[in-house]
Amino acid sequence: MSIQILRWNELADVKDELAGRDWFFGTSGNLSIKVTDDPLTFFVSASGKDKRKRTQEDFLLVNDAGEAVERTHLKPSAETLLHVEVYGKTNAGCSLHVHTVDNNVISELYADQKEIVFTGQEIIKALGVWEEDASVSIPIMRNHADIPKLAREFAKHVYGDSGAVLIQNHGITVWGKNAFEAKKQLEAWEFLFSYHLKLLSVKNSNIVSLQVQ
Amino acid sequence: MSIQILRWNELADVKDELAGRDWFFGTSGNLSIKVTDDPLTFFVSASGKDKRKRTQEDFLLVNDAGEAVERTHLKPSAETLLHVEVYGKTNAGCSLHVHTVDNNVISELYADQKEIVFTGQEIIKALGVWEEDASVSIPIMRNHADIPKLAREFAKHVYGDSGAVLIQNHGITVWGKNAFEAKKQLEAWEFLFSYHLKLLSVKNSNIVSLQVQ
Amino acid sequence: MSIQILRWNELADVKDELAGRDWFFGTSGNLSIKVTDDPLTFFVSASGKDKRKRTQEDFLLVNDAGEAVERTHLKPSAETLLHVEVYGKTNAGCSLHVHTVDNNVISELYADQKEIVFTGQEIIKALGVWEEDASVSIPIMRNHADIPKLAREFAKHVYGDSGAVLIQNHGITVWGKNAFEAKKQLEAWEFLFSYHLKLLSVKNSNIVSLQVQ
Amino acid sequence: MSIQILRWNELADVKDELAGRDWFFGTSGNLSIKVTDDPLTFFVSASGKDKRKRTQEDFLLVNDAGEAVERTHLKPSAETLLHVEVYGKTNAGCSLHVHTVDNNVISELYADQKEIVFTGQEIIKALGVWEEDASVSIPIMRNHADIPKLAREFAKHVYGDSGAVLIQNHGITVWGKNAFEAKKQLEAWEFLFSYHLKLLSVKNSNIVSLQVQ
Repeated sequence: MSIQILRWNELADVKDELAGRDWFFGTSGNLSIKVTDDPLTFFVSASGKDKRKRTQEDFLLVNDAGEAVERTHLKPSAETLLHVEVYGKTNAGCSLHVHTVDNNVISELYADQKEIVFTGQEIIKALGVWEEDASVSIPIMRNHADIPKLAREFAKHVYGDSGAVLIQNHGITVWGKNAFEAKKQLEAWEFLFSYHLKLLSVKNSNIVSLQVQ
Repeated sequence: MSIQILRWNELADVKDELAGRDWFFGTSGNLSIKVTDDPLTFFVSASGKDKRKRTQEDFLLVNDAGEAVERTHLKPSAETLLHVEVYGKTNAGCSLHVHTVDNNVISELYADQKEIVFTGQEIIKALGVWEEDASVSIPIMRNHADIPKLAREFAKHVYGDSGAVLIQNHGITVWGKNAFEAKKQLEAWEFLFSYHLKLLSVKNSNIVSLQVQ
Repeated sequence: MSIQILRWNELADVKDELAGRDWFFGTSGNLSIKVTDDPLTFFVSASGKDKRKRTQEDFLLVNDAGEAVERTHLKPSAETLLHVEVYGKTNAGCSLHVHTVDNNVISELYADQKEIVFTGQEIIKALGVWEEDASVSIPIMRNHADIPKLAREFAKHVYGDSGAVLIQNHGITVWGKNAFEAKKQLEAWEFLFSYHLKLLSVKNSNIVSLQVQ
Repeated sequence: MSIQILRWNELADVKDELAGRDWFFGTSGNLSIKVTDDPLTFFVSASGKDKRKRTQEDFLLVNDAGEAVERTHLKPSAETLLHVEVYGKTNAGCSLHVHTVDNNVISELYADQKEIVFTGQEIIKALGVWEEDASVSIPIMRNHADIPKLAREFAKHVYGDSGAVLIQNHGITVWGKNAFEAKKQLEAWEFLFSYHLKLLSVKNSNIVSLQVQ
């Protein structure tokens, strides 16, 4: 099987799984996977598709300027420039961007702190951090309607071959060596966000008096 | 394939997807899709069906009075008149009405304000609004057991070829060019409602002191 | 197809759907469907089965004493006597009992009031109540480990050919004309419970100041 | 069918079901099933696999030291030593370890109390406790990055042929006679955790004044 078909299927599989969780509501979100390094080419979501469906028009191949490398009527996702930054600045092979209710709420609650930090969570190991009581943090940046500006600001947070950025009320972007690694990170961050919000929602309660119900 | 079969399948597909999310609890909700413009005919949900099943009796063809255009033992949904208003006043091709816990709670919380407004959310773009820091609002109207009265009040909020209305403790109705556009809007609104409720549920917490857990 | 096969499949289908929502955690819950009236026979869940699987041993036929009418190694659900009460006192054709987190929490919060009342919810129509601003209420009774005693107390709330009872921290039981009607009621009550809990979870927030986010 | 194939399939089936609930986010969690008693061998999750997929490399056979008993490129899960303790100290046949948002939040909220106690819940019967108003408790222990140390501390809570332990911010481990019994317990505990958190999230509200909405 050609490398193009392999990569397409990897990306389509990860799309199916994330779509099954309703992480692409309202056609939001986009995904990409690197195909060749030199010159850089990668598959990226076509703009405006319903990601619950699996079709031959879900992705298109683009270059290091985010432009289609073959004749096509498809348009690359409006946010393709963010994927260009990932592949330009790191050795990552896959990048995933999704909106979830929880990642949007976290990005709003902690926007002023510009990051959120998690400590003492076993699932941090999925982010490649194995020390006891380790901390991980994810930057939270402002959103911009202008995509080139958004991409430039985003690029400031892109280093390391895996990583993640929250954009305020605009979801999370993660990148990793391949689709498996990118999805693993995505799930770990989402778990941490949901955990944190659930903890906040009960933290005001008089817990001790309720322990034995 | 005839236009009737195409439209039937489009509507059945969107019904399956929404039913899979349990957005039609207790046989609530209804859907329609336009088939012809002149004279107006559209498929609408038959009354009282379990929308988790896909059958030949899920929809029936009705006219601009909401009456069946062919002999059938099926009854159009009790709320067919609302769909009549959508197709009579706009160029929309599809209209979806669902009850979710979150859209009902939002409609109750903000009933007195008669609307809820969202600002600074990336997912607003799915509603066709692309400016930075744009606001979108959705009207919230009172519910009426009398359907003709409900339809008349509903009609006051129906303009534009895509749009959405919340009825207090009676779910959301959206309309758009076709099933894809209507579903995109529906998902964007539901995302905003869920986001807002999640934010409310944690907003009283002492967030800063909990940031590093 | 014989009436037995028809009823078995109806019950198996409703079991599959409720199991898909994880409404039978820990092998909790049970279901039944009437097969004959005179003498009364009905299929009821066999005890201790994983309801996520569909097998030939999911149900067994019992009589008006809740005893198997054919030789079998299967044991009827421990709570078969509650189903006996339903068929003995009403014309219902199906009865469903499930534990959900939300119905258990509601049953605990309102145990002292012995009921919970809902008003002004469109989904009340699924319970057969069509007047504007109608109220519906569901009784909440204490739980008893002794099943004959539990069944006797339960019977006090069983009248009408469709109905519902909450047992404190022991889930909901609904009954209706057939599997479709019983499931419709079950979904309507669950919707009301989830709605109410979501509303409570945000009701303390300073809603107005958050409206425009 | 050989006992190995039977056990493999039992474990793969339970993995599929738990993975479908997203209880293995970020490749977290692990599972095992006993194959032979003397000498002890059991299948355990291979390290670092995506548990949403079902493959020939999901598990490997290990001995009472947690070491592979056949030549393989697979590595046993990093936490295999905890499973070794279960099979060494009890007659259990299956052990399941999952991270959920709710079990992690409970483990954090009650870490200082070193346990959480539940009383008066019908679903407690799934844990094998049938008396009226019975209590069940689950120990909550600190997490340790050092796995042999973690396993030693864990072992202090392992007695009885079925049981469960929460590790702070590191999920739940349950064990039981077979996959069915282990999963039944897992679901019962998760139900209790979710119930408790939902109750906490609404407990501050002015419930009486909201009863009739």
